[in-house]
Amino acid sequence: MMSNSPMVSTMMPVHLSINHFLERAGLLFGTNEVISRRPDKSYIHHTYADIYKRTRQLAQALTDLGLNKGDRVATLCWNHHVHLESYFGIPAAGGVMHTLNLRLSADEIAWIANDAQDRFLIVDDVLLPLLNQFKDKCRFEHIIVVPFSGQVHTGPELDYESLLSQTDATHFQYADHHEDDPVSMCYTSGTTGKPKGVVYSHRSTVLHTLVGCLGDFWSLKSTDVVFPVTPMFHANSWGIPYGAMMMGAKLVFPGPHLHPEDLLDCMQYAPPSLALGVPTIWMGLIQTYEAALQTQPDRWRLPKGMRSLVGGAAVPEALIRAFDKHGIWIMQGWGMTETSPLCTVSYPKSEFADASEQEKFRRAAMAGAPVPLVDLRIRDDHGHNAAWDGQQVGEIQVRGPFITGSYHQVPVEADKFSDDGWLRTGDVASVDASGFVRITDRTKDLIKSGGEWISSVDLENALMAHPSIAEAAVVAIPDIKWSERPLACVVLKPGAALDTQALANHLQHMGFAKWQLPDRYELLDQIPRTSTGKFYKLKLREMFPA
Amino acid sequence: MMSNSPMVSTMMPVHLSINHFLERAGLLFGTNEVISRRPDKSYIHHTYADIYKRTRQLAQALTDLGLNKGDRVATLCWNHHVHLESYFGIPAAGGVMHTLNLRLSADEIAWIANDAQDRFLIVDDVLLPLLNQFKDKCRFEHIIVVPFSGQVHTGPELDYESLLSQTDATHFQYADHHEDDPVSMCYTSGTTGKPKGVVYSHRSTVLHTLVGCLGDFWSLKSTDVVFPVTPMFHANSWGIPYGAMMMGAKLVFPGPHLHPEDLLDCMQYAPPSLALGVPTIWMGLIQTYEAALQTQPDRWRLPKGMRSLVGGAAVPEALIRAFDKHGIWIMQGWGMTETSPLCTVSYPKSEFADASEQEKFRRAAMAGAPVPLVDLRIRDDHGHNAAWDGQQVGEIQVRGPFITGSYHQVPVEADKFSDDGWLRTGDVASVDASGFVRITDRTKDLIKSGGEWISSVDLENALMAHPSIAEAAVVAIPDIKWSERPLACVVLKPGAALDTQALANHLQHMGFAKWQLPDRYELLDQIPRTSTGKFYKLKLREMFPA
Repeated sequence: MMSNSPMVSTMMPVHLSINHFLERAGLLFGTNEVISRRPDKSYIHHTYADIYKRTRQLAQALTDLGLNKGDRVATLCWNHHVHLESYFGIPAAGGVMHTLNLRLSADEIAWIANDAQDRFLIVDDVLLPLLNQFKDKCRFEHIIVVPFSGQVHTGPELDYESLLSQTDATHFQYADHHEDDPVSMCYTSGTTGKPKGVVYSHRSTVLHTLVGCLGDFWSLKSTDVVFPVTPMFHANSWGIPYGAMMMGAKLVFPGPHLHPEDLLDCMQYAPPSLALGVPTIWMGLIQTYEAALQTQPDRWRLPKGMRSLVGGAAVPEALIRAFDKHGIWIMQGWGMTETSPLCTVSYPKSEFADASEQEKFRRAAMAGAPVPLVDLRIRDDHGHNAAWDGQQVGEIQVRGPFITGSYHQVPVEADKFSDDGWLRTGDVASVDASGFVRITDRTKDLIKSGGEWISSVDLENALMAHPSIAEAAVVAIPDIKWSERPLACVVLKPGAALDTQALANHLQHMGFAKWQLPDRYELLDQIPRTSTGKFYKLKLREMFPA
Repeated sequence: MMSNSPMVSTMMPVHLSINHFLERAGLLFGTNEVISRRPDKSYIHHTYADIYKRTRQLAQALTDLGLNKGDRVATLCWNHHVHLESYFGIPAAGGVMHTLNLRLSADEIAWIANDAQDRFLIVDDVLLPLLNQFKDKCRFEHIIVVPFSGQVHTGPELDYESLLSQTDATHFQYADHHEDDPVSMCYTSGTTGKPKGVVYSHRSTVLHTLVGCLGDFWSLKSTDVVFPVTPMFHANSWGIPYGAMMMGAKLVFPGPHLHPEDLLDCMQYAPPSLALGVPTIWMGLIQTYEAALQTQPDRWRLPKGMRSLVGGAAVPEALIRAFDKHGIWIMQGWGMTETSPLCTVSYPKSEFADASEQEKFRRAAMAGAPVPLVDLRIRDDHGHNAAWDGQQVGEIQVRGPFITGSYHQVPVEADKFSDDGWLRTGDVASVDASGFVRITDRTKDLIKSGGEWISSVDLENALMAHPSIAEAAVVAIPDIKWSERPLACVVLKPGAALDTQALANHLQHMGFAKWQLPDRYELLDQIPRTSTGKFYKLKLREMFPA
């Protein structure tokens, strides 16, 4: 039997581009606002028309400074309007925005900036003391200082506002690009100790934005007021700045003020309809709020009808219940820097409409179901797919157009990707018949403290480099405030004594930040080991439950 | 100054595919329902688990019947679950679904099926009388009859249900494909008289689905109940079947019953949260509903909180106000078969929050703002972009990844596409500072009756082929029920008399369907002409306003 003549789609070959979001915001949402909180706790207001103009000025200025296509421009910034301008202005000029994580130690930041080969840096003036700790180790050709504190910057570096005001972007032309060209990069921590770069493209960013904005997830509308507490240097603030720009939602940035009182103050000033943050901060928020209800009942009011997406670490059911008491429903998301990051969301599926309250909370405390465009499977130890029966466990593996398939200039390793190209997340989970993922364990030995990763392997290696230590195993112990904190189990060398202050000094000398240091040391005669000779960390966690 | 090393995105090269939506629905939304109304007005229920299984059986059966990649499979069906299965099953097998418009004349359908080279046909048993009018003119290798009326089909054709029940799809493999490969096609009417095929791809369909589902447009969630009254043979029912499958929303299909009473009955049986239709049908719906409130107040209740998207023709403000009185807000969409179709939506942007009621209704009666991924511009007669000031008018031109850049096997013509590749829509409009499009006129001489196009040029040519007619010009006149109806202005040949019945017979003989015939004939001494000698249709419309 013959086939008929071949058929091709008649659709236009138009590339996906985040520049479209910027143009769209300039054309359609000019009067909508972007509010940022400054170091002195005052608020600065911009319209999207301002942001549009300033972003194109930034892009023109970067081009004038000699930025070439694919060049990396680092940011070392809090959440505010200039960081938003960098999100769009750097790619508009053909550059790649590289968000540096200001929570890391100076040495780590320097290593990451050098690995990425960052040419330019945009830095908040209030973060110059941090920059000064590692500037000499990097080769930034231009440092552009954001006068975020309100003071004009007078050092040898460029001043962001002066640069913009001197730049005419009337005839700015977006850099030519393909949809697979990079727009931003972010480093992820790994068990091997060295962070690895994930590079997002126009295509992946546009697709992730479209998916995130869908009705069951962010459900973003132009009438929304979005409060991104999650840092813009963590997986692009989960992608929400792109979503807000696309839909024209009002943005309220907390700046450097992340204490519960400050966040609650900010919520009074510009009540959000959608707030995003990590469990640690949300826990502090609700505790402070409830305490104030007793003593100063009129001080704060949680915004009526506010939606909240919490992620970055497992969200305890107790936290969801605490917010629910005040009429705020928390949705949980799970993902990684490698996944743009939205992979699964725990949202009220139609089949749960008649479920009991208890069941709804139980569901809310799960990682949820995969979002569109993400394929998810559970692989058991034999490389077979586990059934979605809520019982069988295995490693979560994911695949999709906004999932990383490699790392920046790192050979593809079998422990990160399956033979058939799926990302191995390192998280162990079961999936039930509703497609809801329950994460049961982590294969990677990482400790997640306040939304930040601490590598236990790195700490162990550093501790074991100290003259008094024979062996060291570091495990995560549950912590009500930080989710997890590191506990170090150490075996001393004969004749040595445990000096925790000396060990802390040693670790800081090795490049660890203060918050990465173990809270507690336990002295052991020997570290329990598995049959294959590895540290038996499960056993250690049982020995020191909290 | 040197640039640093080139950078490539690390994202996975995963293709967009509507097969992902089918797999997703099977995995995540198995218990959600798809309800179809049958010819006898009974309802048939399926779960997404059923639809998933049946769709893969259809795909396997088509493969077993010899379908090859890119082959066209036509559908001649009402809105129901089998049409949904065809939407996904035909592309799953590598085929291209071609929806035939059952409102066209038998000759037109035959011409279109031959132009598309349809190999197989899936047809409702209740539409066999229509098929029998043109079957001999086509070369369908297999005709698969859907026993939609509930009767097992006994003719020489294949029976859809028997085919499925005989097919084991356990090991079905999706056809290999690229995201630019076609999934479906739909014919659009043109002024030149011959319909032209638009071919959608996996990529364009996935992107259009993601955009349509966004919060400000369909705002689709898994808890939604969607009622697509807009035909599945009109621009894929505006893409809503894909959206429902992706988000796992419940679907309620009206089958062949589109009378207001039937639609209201259907809404009682399964109250929708989102209903989509054309103005003509919505107008009948509200009139019938309001009349019944007087005589049988308990007969129907419009679903509380139902959202509604109306499009396909200009939505009168009176219609929006009529529904608003009953608590239902109508959003208007504008688009074409060529645009997948969603191009603009009139939705309540944040800046209208404090607008007067009058202003809100005025806005709702506009075509609205362009959706993400669609670039829109207004070109004046000199080829310049008109300012977005609400005053300057010009032709709407659009560009984007789900806009057609050509027609199936038709050379690209300058009257359809600009030199720089934008689609020339033929609609004339202004855009205001909020990005809201107001369509003022149509450059194409088409009449839109009840959501269907009638070509005035075709009618003119056919009329002028009659021995008694010297000249004929056909214009659209406003019609409360059908939006527009054709009026024929004719100049008789000397000695001839006007015989409207003879003209109607003549037109039907020429291949026009009954509803395409002019309602009214006006006798003129001469047809007014423009300076360039063309029929001065604007003048004619002024002479015969209604």
